[in-house]
Amino acid sequence: MAVKQKAAERIILGIDPGTTITGYGVIRAGIAGPELITIGCIDLSKFGDHYLKLKHIFDRTTGIIDEYHPDELAIEAPFYGKNVQSMLKLGRAQGAAIAAALSRSLPIFEYAPRKIKLSITGVGSASKEQVAAMLMKILRFRDSELKLDATDGLAAALCHFYQTGRPSAAGSKAQSWKQFIRENPGRIK
Amino acid sequence: MAVKQKAAERIILGIDPGTTITGYGVIRAGIAGPELITIGCIDLSKFGDHYLKLKHIFDRTTGIIDEYHPDELAIEAPFYGKNVQSMLKLGRAQGAAIAAALSRSLPIFEYAPRKIKLSITGVGSASKEQVAAMLMKILRFRDSELKLDATDGLAAALCHFYQTGRPSAAGSKAQSWKQFIRENPGRIK
Repeated sequence: MAVKQKAAERIILGIDPGTTITGYGVIRAGIAGPELITIGCIDLSKFGDHYLKLKHIFDRTTGIIDEYHPDELAIEAPFYGKNVQSMLKLGRAQGAAIAAALSRSLPIFEYAPRKIKLSITGVGSASKEQVAAMLMKILRFRDSELKLDATDGLAAALCHFYQTGRPSAAGSKAQSWKQFIRENPGRIK
Repeated sequence: MAVKQKAAERIILGIDPGTTITGYGVIRAGIAGPELITIGCIDLSKFGDHYLKLKHIFDRTTGIIDEYHPDELAIEAPFYGKNVQSMLKLGRAQGAAIAAALSRSLPIFEYAPRKIKLSITGVGSASKEQVAAMLMKILRFRDSELKLDATDGLAAALCHFYQTGRPSAAGSKAQSWKQFIRENPGRIK
């Protein structure tokens, strides 16, 4: 049974790239529902240099992937911004995070901020506080010190979980030796 | 003398990131002046998927760096665009190329398109054809098949060479054993 459950499980990394704060969260999408593995944020405000910020986003994202081995990356991606300057900066931050995920061959899924809020709270215009409160309720954790910027990454991961559905016992992977043989006739001589 | 020249030389990679075509050029900045090593472009039009394009920019940029071992990256970076959508896309392409360079610890230098044209031709509003013709003249090569998108990357490399000056025999690196001892008194007991 342990093998069966492992096959159906997925680890999802959610990330909200930004050049001041990049928030991230990792959840395990198991049969019993989503489970929090970690939540945090990469503080980039201490770096004055734009390239050091991008390098730090790339390195830390790579480090998180190598530590938690996620199967998928969910990314919060606003498609509209105040102006072309801020969008270019945001695009570079996204590009650095996406490049880290791609260099580890992770499939990427993008969600607009409104879609994420709607998915978590049922209201597309929900505040960061409402999203954070709902995340703590769903994932059964409390953290009064939590930075609200960190929750956006976690929210992206949970939104992706809701969009793609929880794994079931009858997942896409082989569930038994009998099924493996049936699906891979050429592998057994 | 061979060691002396090697110390003063730099290899510059110039790149013009874009999600349809990413042009690049590599020059050797030696005492005798700039010398063409290679020029080319990464054709991304064949990839329908946005992430495959970004992955290809990241992988190919990494590959070019590992093949030619440049000391510096010069990048053409427009700071204004038609709209926020195109700037976000451009930012991601730049982010993927910059992440590749940063992961190999290359210093990065950005130049606006106008600055590059001015530096190569003396005219900030020069056409791509004028820039290409001037590049061929300065770097003494002819290529009637050359794609104009490729020349923008090479132009960025040459612009960076002009901005930072050609290496001289009295460069910043130690030129002789005597000079090394003078500059590093603590290293010799």
